[in-house]
Amino acid sequence: MSIPAPTVGELDPSIRLLLGPGPSPVHPRVYRAMTTPLLGHLDPEFLGIMNEVQAQLRYVFQTTNPFTIAVSGTGSAGMEAALVNVIEPGDTVIICAAGVFGNRMADIVGRAGGKLVKLEVPWGQVFPHAAIEDALEKHAPVKAVGIVHAETSTGAMQPIDGLGKLCHAHGALLVVDTVTSLGGIPVTVDAWEADAIYSGTQKCLSCPPGLAPLTLSPRALDSVRARKTKVQSWYLDAGMVADYWAEGKRVYHHTAPITMVYALREALRLVAEEGLEERFARHRSNSAALIAGFAALGAKPLSPEGSRLPSLNAVTPPEGVDEAAVRKYLLTEHDIEIGGGLGPLAGKLWRIGLMGYGSSQANVLAVLSAIEQGMKKQGKAVAPGTAAAAALRAYDAA
Amino acid sequence: MSIPAPTVGELDPSIRLLLGPGPSPVHPRVYRAMTTPLLGHLDPEFLGIMNEVQAQLRYVFQTTNPFTIAVSGTGSAGMEAALVNVIEPGDTVIICAAGVFGNRMADIVGRAGGKLVKLEVPWGQVFPHAAIEDALEKHAPVKAVGIVHAETSTGAMQPIDGLGKLCHAHGALLVVDTVTSLGGIPVTVDAWEADAIYSGTQKCLSCPPGLAPLTLSPRALDSVRARKTKVQSWYLDAGMVADYWAEGKRVYHHTAPITMVYALREALRLVAEEGLEERFARHRSNSAALIAGFAALGAKPLSPEGSRLPSLNAVTPPEGVDEAAVRKYLLTEHDIEIGGGLGPLAGKLWRIGLMGYGSSQANVLAVLSAIEQGMKKQGKAVAPGTAAAAALRAYDAA
Repeated sequence: MSIPAPTVGELDPSIRLLLGPGPSPVHPRVYRAMTTPLLGHLDPEFLGIMNEVQAQLRYVFQTTNPFTIAVSGTGSAGMEAALVNVIEPGDTVIICAAGVFGNRMADIVGRAGGKLVKLEVPWGQVFPHAAIEDALEKHAPVKAVGIVHAETSTGAMQPIDGLGKLCHAHGALLVVDTVTSLGGIPVTVDAWEADAIYSGTQKCLSCPPGLAPLTLSPRALDSVRARKTKVQSWYLDAGMVADYWAEGKRVYHHTAPITMVYALREALRLVAEEGLEERFARHRSNSAALIAGFAALGAKPLSPEGSRLPSLNAVTPPEGVDEAAVRKYLLTEHDIEIGGGLGPLAGKLWRIGLMGYGSSQANVLAVLSAIEQGMKKQGKAVAPGTAAAAALRAYDAA
Repeated sequence: MSIPAPTVGELDPSIRLLLGPGPSPVHPRVYRAMTTPLLGHLDPEFLGIMNEVQAQLRYVFQTTNPFTIAVSGTGSAGMEAALVNVIEPGDTVIICAAGVFGNRMADIVGRAGGKLVKLEVPWGQVFPHAAIEDALEKHAPVKAVGIVHAETSTGAMQPIDGLGKLCHAHGALLVVDTVTSLGGIPVTVDAWEADAIYSGTQKCLSCPPGLAPLTLSPRALDSVRARKTKVQSWYLDAGMVADYWAEGKRVYHHTAPITMVYALREALRLVAEEGLEERFARHRSNSAALIAGFAALGAKPLSPEGSRLPSLNAVTPPEGVDEAAVRKYLLTEHDIEIGGGLGPLAGKLWRIGLMGYGSSQANVLAVLSAIEQGMKKQGKAVAPGTAAAAALRAYDAA
C-alpha cells in the first residue's frame, strides 16, 4: 500500500456545554443506549424496535399518521425527503422564507423541478396567514406550501394553527419544518392538519444528529403514491421507505443507522417520562429567565413576544459589544458554545439554544454569567451577578 | 395533548453475533468512542477531527484525492451521492448489474435523468472488461460507468484494475461501489484510476451504519463543478459538501452526525493499527477456512475462485437442506445472524459475512458448527465437528 496511515491519537475532545443552535447536550441515558450491541437491520427484534420508535414519534408529533418514521440522515435530509416526495416537476410550490432554513427549502424546490413562489418577510418576523392565502389564490393551482415552524437562524416561532385547513381549501399540501421545535414546544401535526412534517434529533430531543423524524399525512402519502414520475431520490423515496417501515411489510430498502435508532428510542423514552406538557413548560420557563437575564445586560430579543422560540433564543447584543469576541471567550474560557447570526444577521445576534436536556436553570445561569463576564472584558461592566439575579427573579415570579 | 405516549421499556435486545451481509460486529473501542460527549459541528476541534477522518479515509481508499469524506447517510446514500453528482439529465451511463446493488445503481441513474445502458451477467459472475469496452464504444459518448466491486447480494468480487484507464480512454468516469470491500480487501482508488468510489461503515470497517465514505477524483470533481444543472439533491450536493469538508473553507452545509464521525474515526484507527495488508490477510485466511468447512458439509461457493469476496461468503446449501430453517435455527438457538439469498437467489444461498472485527477464527468455528447442527436437525447428519475440523486443517495448511 503506497499511501501511509496518518497518525491519529485517542479521541479526547474538550467537553463543551452545547448552548448553540444545535446539537444540544445529549442525555447520559442516550449515550448509554448507543453502546447497546447492534442488531441486524432485518432482525425481528429490530423490526419491533422500529415499531416502538414509530409509536414514540407519533406521540411527540401528536399524530396518528401511519407513515411516521425516522429518515436515515440529519434534519436537512428530512427536509429534502419531505419536499422531493411531494413535488413533481412543474408543480407550483409556495415557500415562506425568512431565514436560512426557509431559503434552503426554496433551493430544494428548484432542484426538484418545482415552480417556486417565494414569500418573504424580514428575518426574525413571521408570516401572516393572509399573505399565504393571497399567494394560494394568485398562483393556483398550488401543489404545496412549505413553512418553517421554528426558524433556527432567527429564533422566530411561526404560528401554524389553521394553516393546514387553509392549504387544503386550495388543494395544496402543507409542509412544515419542526427541526428546532419538536419536543420543545407544541407540535400538533393532526390539529394543524399538516401533511409533511420533519425534524432533527439533535435539538429538543437531546439526541446526537443522525436521524430526521418525518411524518406524512394519508393525504400526502396518497399524493406520493399517485406520482406520475419517480421520486428523484432513491434513498429518500417515501413509497419505498414506507414499505420498509410498515409493520408486516418490512421490504428491505437500506440499512438503517441502528445505533442512532437506539439513541432516538431512548431520547423519546425520556420525553415520554417527563411528559410533553411538562417539557414545554420547562422550555418556556428557562427561556423566560434567560430573556430576563439578557434584558438586565441590555440585550433584546430579535422577534416580538409571542413569536419567539423558547428553544432557540436570538438576542441582539448591547450596542458596542463585539458579539464574536464574546462567543470566542465563552468557548475558550468556559467551554460554552453559543451561536452567532447568519446571513443578514451575521455579527448582529447571539443565538442561545436551551433545548431538551440542555434547557435547565443551571445552564441559564452559566451562559448568562459567562456572557456578563465576556462583556466586562470589553469594558461593558455591570455589577457581577446582574444577569443571574434577573434570571432568578424571573424564576421566582413564574 | 390528545395522543398518549406509548409504553416502551428499557432497551434490552438479544446479543447477536452478526455474521450476515452487514452490519458486522462493532469493536468495543468503537462503542466506547460513541459515548464521547458531542462537540458542535462547527467547533474548531470538530473541524480538526474531520481533517483526521479525511486522512484516515485516504489511507483505506489508498488515494490522495482531496475530496475524501463521509457522507451523512448509510451506504446507499453514498451510492446516490456518487451517481447524482456525476450524472446530468440526458447523460449516457453504463451500469454493470449482477445483483441487488448493481440494479440499485441502475434505478438511481433513471431517477437522475440519465440514459441507462445496463450490462448484465448472471448473478454471482463478474464482468469481463472487454464487454465494458464494447459498450463504451457502442454507446459513445458515455458519461460514466458504474460497477460494484463487492456485490453484497452474491459475494462476487469484480476485478477493477485497469478499468479506470479504459473508461478515461473513452471519456467516461468510473463509479465503483466498495461497500462490502473497503477495509477487508484491497481497494486502491488511485491505482484503479477510479473517479467516484463510495462505501459504508457497517461492513469491513466494523462501525455501526450511518456514514458512507466517499472519494471523488479531481476529474470527477471538475465534472461536478462544470455541471450545467444543479445537482438534484441539496443534501448530497458534492460541491457544497466539498466546501463544508475542505480545510480552511468549512462553509456550513448541514449538521454532520457527530457521534458517527467519532465512531468512524475510532474504527479507522483500528484499521491503521492492524495495517491494511495484515487486515486483508486475516480476511482471506478466515474466508478460506470457512469455505473449507462448508466443503466438508457439502456446501459450495456460488462464485468461482478468484472472484469471491472473503468478506462476504455466498455458498449454496447442500441439496435438500431447508436454508431458511437453518438460518432461523442459528438466530433463535445460537443468536447468530447470517444472510439468505435475494432476488433470483432467494432460498438458494447462505451469505456469511466475515467482516472487520467479525473476521475471526472463533466466529468461523461458531458459525460452521451451528450450521452443522442445524443440518443435523434436518436429518443431514455428519460426524460432530466435521466442519470445524476441516476449517482448522485449512488454518494449519495456510
